[in-house]
Amino acid sequence: MVINKPYLLFLGDASDQLAAKTAEGVAYWRRSDCVGQMRLPGCNANLHLPDLTIAEASKQGALTLLIGVANRGGRLSELWLPYLREALETGMDIANGLHNRLADVHELAELAANNGRNLFDLRHTSVTFDVANGKKRTGKRLLTVGTDCSVGKMYVSLAIEQEMKRRGIRTSFCATGQTGILIAGGGISVDAVTADFISGAVEALSPDQEPDHWDVIEGQGSLFHPSFAGVSLGLLHGAQPDVLVMCHEPTRKHMRGLPEYPVPSIENCITANEAAARLTNPNATCIGISLNTAALDEADARDLLAETEARIGLPCVDAIRTGVSRLVDCIPI
Amino acid sequence: MVINKPYLLFLGDASDQLAAKTAEGVAYWRRSDCVGQMRLPGCNANLHLPDLTIAEASKQGALTLLIGVANRGGRLSELWLPYLREALETGMDIANGLHNRLADVHELAELAANNGRNLFDLRHTSVTFDVANGKKRTGKRLLTVGTDCSVGKMYVSLAIEQEMKRRGIRTSFCATGQTGILIAGGGISVDAVTADFISGAVEALSPDQEPDHWDVIEGQGSLFHPSFAGVSLGLLHGAQPDVLVMCHEPTRKHMRGLPEYPVPSIENCITANEAAARLTNPNATCIGISLNTAALDEADARDLLAETEARIGLPCVDAIRTGVSRLVDCIPI
Repeated sequence: MVINKPYLLFLGDASDQLAAKTAEGVAYWRRSDCVGQMRLPGCNANLHLPDLTIAEASKQGALTLLIGVANRGGRLSELWLPYLREALETGMDIANGLHNRLADVHELAELAANNGRNLFDLRHTSVTFDVANGKKRTGKRLLTVGTDCSVGKMYVSLAIEQEMKRRGIRTSFCATGQTGILIAGGGISVDAVTADFISGAVEALSPDQEPDHWDVIEGQGSLFHPSFAGVSLGLLHGAQPDVLVMCHEPTRKHMRGLPEYPVPSIENCITANEAAARLTNPNATCIGISLNTAALDEADARDLLAETEARIGLPCVDAIRTGVSRLVDCIPI
Repeated sequence: MVINKPYLLFLGDASDQLAAKTAEGVAYWRRSDCVGQMRLPGCNANLHLPDLTIAEASKQGALTLLIGVANRGGRLSELWLPYLREALETGMDIANGLHNRLADVHELAELAANNGRNLFDLRHTSVTFDVANGKKRTGKRLLTVGTDCSVGKMYVSLAIEQEMKRRGIRTSFCATGQTGILIAGGGISVDAVTADFISGAVEALSPDQEPDHWDVIEGQGSLFHPSFAGVSLGLLHGAQPDVLVMCHEPTRKHMRGLPEYPVPSIENCITANEAAARLTNPNATCIGISLNTAALDEADARDLLAETEARIGLPCVDAIRTGVSRLVDCIPI
């Protein structure tokens, strides 16, 4: 699967910035691959890229329209169809991170076929997986885990990969969600896998490697999220991580999408993840924490990082604000 | 979906009795719906039903051939194809509990269409589910959980349903696997659901009910099985159980299919299940244990039940050997 660049990032009518996190991730980690963004009325997200129409983006060389919006439940909006049609008619492919398949929308499938364009439904795969066998694999693995969904696990993973590579450590980023797949150019959307094969898919994603090679595996969800914890546990078991990094958003008032559910403490979340991880890797250890302090000012963020580090007794960074160097120092290379 | 009875139970070349647990369950709970069994060379399972050819079964009125074999990974064997063709040609439907779709096997799909027969791929569903919302539902729920796969969760669930109904309690059995679906005539194979929707599917399977109504939900897998724990956790969260019943097979030497993995203690498994269940139902409590003592003689079984009950401090039964009356006594009706 080769997705042609550069991209036009389609934000639709994203209700807030978090809803556009797919597009935001691609823009942050691969900005030079993005000609601009397209926003519809009611869109409350902004990536500070040029606002372009389909025609303008096409003129500037965009080869693929990325549906960069992650609505709850991952559904395709009827509102977007005219724009998707226009993109196909002007010669772009479409890459789609939603659960709905573009290929199942008859008029889009037909239009793509007639125009010789491709529809990439990133959450779907025709690949089948084996059931996980739980056998110890060669090489080393780091997995990011979190107190909630959308707390920065992919960013932290990519920052760690970047820093490990900078130090000359053999490292691969293993993408488990649609944004990561767009950034990495490959991977498996584990939440789209048939439930029986979650752990098996992760075993396939991160196979045997050289003894000194590190796979940095992108985590998903949270063991404490009532909607998605099954995915998180299957991913944790399949990853067999040597090292865990806990990710947390300190201003989150409740679990994403579920006002009745409080966010667990970092401490409880570390304990639960280490206990569950040790089923398939008895040495699994959380070596540090990354807080997403984007909502705090510099002084408050520094105070919170220091306070959290002192309280829990593990290095505590913000992958964006401070970098992850102090976490990478703790990885037993 | 209406699956026509009576059934011919197809055991294929099942390597052992456990591999035929789908057929065994149907024969045990709905014996009068089964005209006989069909076994191929190498089959080590036996349901002590008449051994019939397809022609004999058809003559005795069989309307559906049930593929009652649950191989590891749930794959369709090439060896079985001639028999499946013969069944369709003699006028039977086929019901299939494997992961592979019969509908994807071109010659079977064509043969079924040409003969006006139905292929029921029980592990697949065209129904889509919402993401779980974790909201408290009305009515009461009991979920069977286990130390491992294939330890008797469905049998215990059906025995509890039967005993509760005998006492006049409004009760429904909620099937989550292919055998349960064949017995109940409906349900959702949760291990076949897309990973993101495991908990949401269970919320749909067991919706709001009258306050005095009990759903008895069939558990799947184990939180301690490295291949399937994600399914078990998603099912546990979606079920929001008021009551848990722990199921265990005391002679199991290791987790099913994984010689490297020991079976967890009943105590640890109760603790882990209660802790995880309390995310979505803070009152979730394990009220008792059912041991599958089929491999023990009567005296050893009675000793083990008494010893386990004394050690753990919860009623301990064997759903088949002793019945579940003492468990049902402990359900807070």
